[in-house]
Amino acid sequence: MVKTRLLAASDISKIIDMRDVLEVVEDAFRQYGLGKTIMPPKLYLILDKHSGDFRAMPAYIEGSAGLKWVSVYPNNPKKGIPTVMAMIIYNDPDTGFPLAIMDGTEITNYRTGAGGGVAAKYLARPNSKTLGLIGAGRQAKTQLLAVSQLFKLESILVWSHVKEEIEKLKIEYPDLPIKSARIEEAAACDIVCTTTPVRGFIVKREWISKGAHINAIGADAPGKQELEPTILRDAKVVVDDVAQATHSGEINVAIKRGLFKKSEIYATLGEIVTGTKKGRVADEITVFDSTGLAIQDIATAKMLFEKAKAQDIGHEFNVIG
Amino acid sequence: MVKTRLLAASDISKIIDMRDVLEVVEDAFRQYGLGKTIMPPKLYLILDKHSGDFRAMPAYIEGSAGLKWVSVYPNNPKKGIPTVMAMIIYNDPDTGFPLAIMDGTEITNYRTGAGGGVAAKYLARPNSKTLGLIGAGRQAKTQLLAVSQLFKLESILVWSHVKEEIEKLKIEYPDLPIKSARIEEAAACDIVCTTTPVRGFIVKREWISKGAHINAIGADAPGKQELEPTILRDAKVVVDDVAQATHSGEINVAIKRGLFKKSEIYATLGEIVTGTKKGRVADEITVFDSTGLAIQDIATAKMLFEKAKAQDIGHEFNVIG
Repeated sequence: MVKTRLLAASDISKIIDMRDVLEVVEDAFRQYGLGKTIMPPKLYLILDKHSGDFRAMPAYIEGSAGLKWVSVYPNNPKKGIPTVMAMIIYNDPDTGFPLAIMDGTEITNYRTGAGGGVAAKYLARPNSKTLGLIGAGRQAKTQLLAVSQLFKLESILVWSHVKEEIEKLKIEYPDLPIKSARIEEAAACDIVCTTTPVRGFIVKREWISKGAHINAIGADAPGKQELEPTILRDAKVVVDDVAQATHSGEINVAIKRGLFKKSEIYATLGEIVTGTKKGRVADEITVFDSTGLAIQDIATAKMLFEKAKAQDIGHEFNVIG
Repeated sequence: MVKTRLLAASDISKIIDMRDVLEVVEDAFRQYGLGKTIMPPKLYLILDKHSGDFRAMPAYIEGSAGLKWVSVYPNNPKKGIPTVMAMIIYNDPDTGFPLAIMDGTEITNYRTGAGGGVAAKYLARPNSKTLGLIGAGRQAKTQLLAVSQLFKLESILVWSHVKEEIEKLKIEYPDLPIKSARIEEAAACDIVCTTTPVRGFIVKREWISKGAHINAIGADAPGKQELEPTILRDAKVVVDDVAQATHSGEINVAIKRGLFKKSEIYATLGEIVTGTKKGRVADEITVFDSTGLAIQDIATAKMLFEKAKAQDIGHEFNVIG
């Protein structure tokens, strides 16, 4: 019998590279746009008594199938444990055999960054020179990694209420032109990535420049929003998945309050990547509302599994008898 | 950080024991009957192109949480790969941390057997002396293991169209009074377990004895049935879960054809175990319609994780960074 490969976080960190992830995530959105993926809605296991929840995220893309099982426990950091932890089971779609079991935590960060990168590639002005990061944590880091792969950035302006995070970014990427900035300065950049967990908007319409592209990443649950709703009204809004975005993405609050309509969503990113819908026109504002799709995880898992196999990274087991 | 324990099929087979599984599965049904479990409906990923499907089965029981990810590929045996393969991720409900990743294939067989055992314990006549097995594969084996733990069996009559399977059972359990029999003889026993994948019924009403208890195990998908529908009409029908049973259990075909009503379901096994609903009355026929619940998997996974930890079975990894 075939063996199952176990990839721990330390294995993943050896082989994960944003360039690879950008490539497979772009292809995942393309397949999605072509209707060639299968992705049932996330299934939640909500444990109110434990102040946490789990999400089962299965997906199929041509040649790969699998599931991410991710937990979100906002009180974990007090115990020295990450809020978000994830495992991915990667299966052979021809037999169901579990080819790999891997840590999905860093994969989640990378594939989310890559989603933002793909959105910026297709929606931001090609000559975008400044990147604004609002929030400077794990998600900001992978947005930075993805966008800086794709654009020649002259200035990266970072705002966070946690100043040490900004310093950490500067130390980690000494070659990038990272500067601490006021929130209105970061928001005025050509490309803006918002990655905060706020529930009342912190980015005002008046700060946004003509022709800007915004990746709205932070809102991932009902009640969360980062952008003043008039930004959505004035922008071309592209979502990763209509059902997920209306349920828990940046637009969910504005929709509930009647400030934005589902029918005002311009396109899915898949439709933009395949060219079914055109991207930006001139100096309009574009917003990508990212909630994170299981196809991004499975596409990344497949790529990492193949890389690990080729380099014999991780451990092989006869998990199935 | 805590480590994650990996339990392969060979580890599981070292420590799994039907007596333990019976105990924790009975408790799982009790917790279910008390409304203390959380179990969203199974989520299907159906890959028609590959003639297979996956099911995500998350569950919470007091003190444990997790998910089974199980694939069903009916054409696999032609390739020398099992039809059903499963992985279980067992999590700490207080933090979401994945405490263990384990093969779930044998666990699925055992917890299904234990479900039948618990049903027979509460629904069969306590002096039941004969067991009839209709079908003699993996599922029949664990029904046999469970029922023979709980009853003093004088005779075990087995019918299968695969005669070698019956011989294998005899060789594996030389101390049990196993005999090959005609289907009508097996069906006439005090306790009858049907474990075949048929889509047209093969067990006739006229064969069933007064006071018999039937575990209907084989039907696990829409369109499958093993029992002549008049058996359901004449019996007290107990299900594991009303939604799952009406969707894909033994009763699904009879309901679709108008031969049985959802309202005719007498109780869930949880209600029987907690005593909310009474069990059998005198010599009536009882039927347990088993579809398999995620709480059975997670309860068994928790027990095996603790046993493995105590005996240091399996491998520990820093899977999460």
